Amino acid sequence: MPPDPFFTGPGLDRADHLRADPEAIAALGDQVDARELEWIDGAPALDEQGKLKWRQMSGARPILLGLDNGAPRFSALSDGSTPANAYAHIHLLALLDAKDAATFSAALSLANWHRRHGHCSVCGTPTEPNRGGWSRACPNCGAEHYPRSDPVVIMLAEHDGKLLLGRQPQYPSGRYSALAGFVEPGESIEDAVARELKEEAGITVFDVRYWCSQPWPFPSSLMIGAHAAATSSELTIDHNELDDARWFSRDEVLAALAGDTSATFQAPPKWAIARTLLERWVGA
Amino acid sequence: MPPDPFFTGPGLDRADHLRADPEAIAALGDQVDARELEWIDGAPALDEQGKLKWRQMSGARPILLGLDNGAPRFSALSDGSTPANAYAHIHLLALLDAKDAATFSAALSLANWHRRHGHCSVCGTPTEPNRGGWSRACPNCGAEHYPRSDPVVIMLAEHDGKLLLGRQPQYPSGRYSALAGFVEPGESIEDAVARELKEEAGITVFDVRYWCSQPWPFPSSLMIGAHAAATSSELTIDHNELDDARWFSRDEVLAALAGDTSATFQAPPKWAIARTLLERWVGA
Repeated sequence: MPPDPFFTGPGLDRADHLRADPEAIAALGDQVDARELEWIDGAPALDEQGKLKWRQMSGARPILLGLDNGAPRFSALSDGSTPANAYAHIHLLALLDAKDAATFSAALSLANWHRRHGHCSVCGTPTEPNRGGWSRACPNCGAEHYPRSDPVVIMLAEHDGKLLLGRQPQYPSGRYSALAGFVEPGESIEDAVARELKEEAGITVFDVRYWCSQPWPFPSSLMIGAHAAATSSELTIDHNELDDARWFSRDEVLAALAGDTSATFQAPPKWAIARTLLERWVGA
Repeated sequence: MPPDPFFTGPGLDRADHLRADPEAIAALGDQVDARELEWIDGAPALDEQGKLKWRQMSGARPILLGLDNGAPRFSALSDGSTPANAYAHIHLLALLDAKDAATFSAALSLANWHRRHGHCSVCGTPTEPNRGGWSRACPNCGAEHYPRSDPVVIMLAEHDGKLLLGRQPQYPSGRYSALAGFVEPGESIEDAVARELKEEAGITVFDVRYWCSQPWPFPSSLMIGAHAAATSSELTIDHNELDDARWFSRDEVLAALAGDTSATFQAPPKWAIARTLLERWVGA
């Protein structure tokens, strides 16, 4: 079995039962073993071993990330300095310790959400963090808003033993990866996979199968990895979405995953669920 | 194979490529075969056969639901009369034709989202529908906001040939169903299933498997159905979330699905993915 997707795993105990109790959260913040996450350039800071950096509490912090063997772990609302996207933080992702990746993802997703949700979407009034930072409450209309986690399908389409991969304009040179798109209201995962492959590549698929999932903190998605069988290899590429899309053989995928200099494309990096999908496909 | 979950299926052609073109959308609205959805009491209206009711266009409508064999299908932002929830609309769900269910779900989810997102979450300014109603744009800060589709895990936990089902306080008398909860930022589907079962029932699970998914328009969720194996049958029930939770045998589930008067619980209705999960389990 290939490894699970990066960013998955237990992370901290989220201590959901404490979130509704502001006094309990304040008491946690006063514990001697309480720590707060360090931020730098809009992302959680890492030490030289790729572990998250924690420091003594510098005051009450709005986000209770959870408990680490009972020790409270808090965060500020990031340092607010930089919009977070995967390409801006590639140097961090390359270093990040896999065991800290789930907490990195939770903290960054939450921070990204707070950054763009300072006002009530119902009435426009400024809102305040609530429930240990896992919601925001409106003091005017009383609405409570919860963090978004936007479902995205990302999928391998297969025909005649070959896989369909595509290039988005912002990819590094030579990179091909799995096609992807947001699940829309009124769609199942399977419906969204079929629609996206039709829209972006012009192919019809059947036998859509879920494979694995991953939280993705750029800004706050749930990546849902799937495989589908295509009825034909004929492509009609939507060039508003993709620079290119092509069918790759098993040997080409193996060479790309191995990083061969003769590979016909560059595989996605270890932190992308697209790589996990490719690893599972060649291992299957 | 049991049927796919209710609300799934192709629905309308979403015509994504037209959404960025206001002139094309206006021209669609002028076609003689354009129709708009009728609304009543905050939900799409149904005729006596359980089909969606469409009428002649009564002016420009902000939401382009899609194309039905090329014929444009629009909607107003509902009639704004009633917050939509499943229990308020049970009479509709019992009648709704399965072929129209995907469009019902898309229209109602979108309307529910527009209703609570009239202001920009970044700066508080009133926003306007954009992209044929599939986003809202802020005239002040330029932010574009897309409809939410909140991922929810809903799962059967199994131990020693029995299934864990629970009762939420608002359920009809005698009803037991699959446990469920929102996927949080920083969690995979598998992580969320394990966390929710630990929080609500105190059980530890392994071998979490995705089974099927369903869009759920009350107000706008993506239900992600799964199965997990529990390490023990000992329960610690969170009574803030559940009235009760119990293990049920295959014979008890079969009797409930058959609607036997002697059944030990009432199964969820046909439109709930929890019923699909139970049907797959007894068929497996």
